[in-house]
Amino acid sequence: MDMNELLTINLPRLQAMIDVSSKIGALADGGLCRLALSNEDKAMRDIFVNWLQDAGLTVRVDDFGNIYGRRKGKKPGAAPVMIGSHLDTQPAGGKFDGILGVLAGLEVVHVLNDHHIETEHPIEIVSFTNEEGARFQPPMLGSGGIAGVFEKDFILGRKDKEGRRFDEELKRVGYFGSAEDRPKDIHRYLELHIEQGPVLEKENFPVAAVEGISGMTWIEVTVTGESNHAGPTPMVMRRDALVVTAKMISVINQLVRVLDEDLTATTGQIKISPNVINCIPSTAVFSVDVRHPQDSVRGKAISMIQEKIATIAASGGVTVSTNVIWDIAATQFSQEIISYVYAGSTAHGYPVRSMISGAGHDAKYMNDIVPSAMIFVPSVKGRSHCQEEFTRWEDIEKGVNVLLYTVQALAQK
Amino acid sequence: MDMNELLTINLPRLQAMIDVSSKIGALADGGLCRLALSNEDKAMRDIFVNWLQDAGLTVRVDDFGNIYGRRKGKKPGAAPVMIGSHLDTQPAGGKFDGILGVLAGLEVVHVLNDHHIETEHPIEIVSFTNEEGARFQPPMLGSGGIAGVFEKDFILGRKDKEGRRFDEELKRVGYFGSAEDRPKDIHRYLELHIEQGPVLEKENFPVAAVEGISGMTWIEVTVTGESNHAGPTPMVMRRDALVVTAKMISVINQLVRVLDEDLTATTGQIKISPNVINCIPSTAVFSVDVRHPQDSVRGKAISMIQEKIATIAASGGVTVSTNVIWDIAATQFSQEIISYVYAGSTAHGYPVRSMISGAGHDAKYMNDIVPSAMIFVPSVKGRSHCQEEFTRWEDIEKGVNVLLYTVQALAQK
Ligand SMILES: NC(=O)NCCC(=O)O
Ligand SMILES: NC(=O)NCCC(=O)O
Repeated sequence: MDMNELLTINLPRLQAMIDVSSKIGALADGGLCRLALSNEDKAMRDIFVNWLQDAGLTVRVDDFGNIYGRRKGKKPGAAPVMIGSHLDTQPAGGKFDGILGVLAGLEVVHVLNDHHIETEHPIEIVSFTNEEGARFQPPMLGSGGIAGVFEKDFILGRKDKEGRRFDEELKRVGYFGSAEDRPKDIHRYLELHIEQGPVLEKENFPVAAVEGISGMTWIEVTVTGESNHAGPTPMVMRRDALVVTAKMISVINQLVRVLDEDLTATTGQIKISPNVINCIPSTAVFSVDVRHPQDSVRGKAISMIQEKIATIAASGGVTVSTNVIWDIAATQFSQEIISYVYAGSTAHGYPVRSMISGAGHDAKYMNDIVPSAMIFVPSVKGRSHCQEEFTRWEDIEKGVNVLLYTVQALAQK
Repeated sequence: MDMNELLTINLPRLQAMIDVSSKIGALADGGLCRLALSNEDKAMRDIFVNWLQDAGLTVRVDDFGNIYGRRKGKKPGAAPVMIGSHLDTQPAGGKFDGILGVLAGLEVVHVLNDHHIETEHPIEIVSFTNEEGARFQPPMLGSGGIAGVFEKDFILGRKDKEGRRFDEELKRVGYFGSAEDRPKDIHRYLELHIEQGPVLEKENFPVAAVEGISGMTWIEVTVTGESNHAGPTPMVMRRDALVVTAKMISVINQLVRVLDEDLTATTGQIKISPNVINCIPSTAVFSVDVRHPQDSVRGKAISMIQEKIATIAASGGVTVSTNVIWDIAATQFSQEIISYVYAGSTAHGYPVRSMISGAGHDAKYMNDIVPSAMIFVPSVKGRSHCQEEFTRWEDIEKGVNVLLYTVQALAQK
């Protein structure tokens, strides 16, 4: 491509799609609650399928509920360039996370349609099921399914907190497609996403070429002490599961802060039992999410965390067990795709920097089966997984222009 | 009374009643889940009312759902000696807590009936509603209602975690009686209960004369930080409500251990939001239950706890608010009744010791309106508010014999 052909997106058209999406599962403070396979997710899926069809795409749904919309290519038998992300959100999530990547893909198709541009490779928009992992754990089940990371039965049998199964919910919302409709061959996978961190905004970059994703581990820790009455039980006779848990959370936090500045550890979930004011807690179950760009650092941190947990449990007179419920290695994306992201940014005159993602994305699993990469746009104040999540429209416009450039480049080869 | 008249209870008859109760809301491990105004509570109430009628008692129910069964006295217009406790349990509670006190009262009536003994004062068995406070907070709503501690509207408007109102649940289970049927005048109140602590068993006493109840305060603490993604948010940029809460729980625990050996502080309840593995918690709400036999010590401890909470919140970059949701002063019971408890124990040849209760009981509020006292029987390993709660039948027999003696003594005057 030369500079004369440099296409740009129609921002108001993309904005209008985001605006529609922002009303489906809207929360009071501007965010969204659109958990995977909820009624809100179904409503959004129905609209999205209409939009795909309106754009002239051929729609199919696979047995994990992933939705695809294909735009034909010229070259006989060529595999598609796939672009997308996810339409589900956290329980109090933002309106861009995932959604932007899917609808930016659709906007790219609209621009190509506007200009009657035919590409060599087909272009396929995808919306993956249950990326967030907020309803069904672990995250990225839809992309993990087609990448062969998880067994089909494992995915279909996942249950939410109320015990409802993934496959039953897929059927209920009408998106239980067929294994036949999984992608057979993919040329390249590309995903635009909000950064979800503070770096781009702080350093004034509208776009990042994402070189990889941190490795991440989720550990579930179960502490078992002894329940007893909060009144007549002297402090010295207690085996309080929560007091010991509080110490574990504090110590893990202190530990990762000194070990490495790129290391994170988070306890996002905790449940104690019996959870009654005047009962000493007998059990506490909590999560530890550990991340680092280098697998060796993460591995070392996890060993140290496990050791601390064991020591604190022993000295607190309780028993403990830990269970790794999710563990993914660090990812290196395709340098070929990244070079187009740089080229596109340069062509448009946008400053661009490289970056490692601290968040997991569907591109992680896609990269297992096809050369993949990502483009990030800045998150205001680095906030995400909350209603305050926001990305400036001017940055979105730049990011999607780079996406368009990169898709064109990949699809023309 | 002289030793010739020393009556004893029919333990198998009492045991049979406890056995029936132990099946209503039974849990797998031998405990009970019979929350106030649940279907299980209704089932137990219906049986209890039948038992009261079978024992020849006149039954009434007041507007808080407290159930009374009255045995006539000889002296015209004399106020009744009231004995009782509660039939509700914790979500994973034991089979004696509360229940023993109510059914022991009924056994006392049966013994008097067996011997055709008429007393000067009427004797009234009572079962109070929602003593535990596990479903509707605060505890002891039924006894607090008739003692005038709480406004009627306050009690009727209490809501459980699912938002169901106390008065609606009272109606649903068919125990919304009339204000007319509250007790008008009471001569003395007496309550037998399990100790729920380790002292009697450790020191080998089958019976305690309870001289008072510790003062107790429930504080609800709300910590507000900022939610964000667990991955891309560096540790140094976080305002994690749970990490700060963990520090508060640890520090409060350490503090009360050094302040005074009779002081307790317990966090029995915690709820974080959004409670998702890969989200930094934005808020944590937790309870602190503080108890001590002396109000001055408890008051000082609470000031220090509030101070620590404020300091830790400030240094953790989060905001905090505290709300006292229950606060009752220490109680001194009637020395007259206690003297009969001693006399009864001596008459039967049982070792007896005096004791301050670390747990709240209906007797606390009853003592505000009528001279009251309690009798404790030992808790094996001091355990209660758990399924392992147990009291040996031989100890129960002794305790109820002393109850019988004391009731006779009070009712004959
Ligand atoms: N982007 C994103 O939030 N994905 C969910 C998986 C993760 O926790 O990183
Ligand atoms: N006995 C008893 O458990 N009462 C509930 C109130 C308290 O927490 O002490």
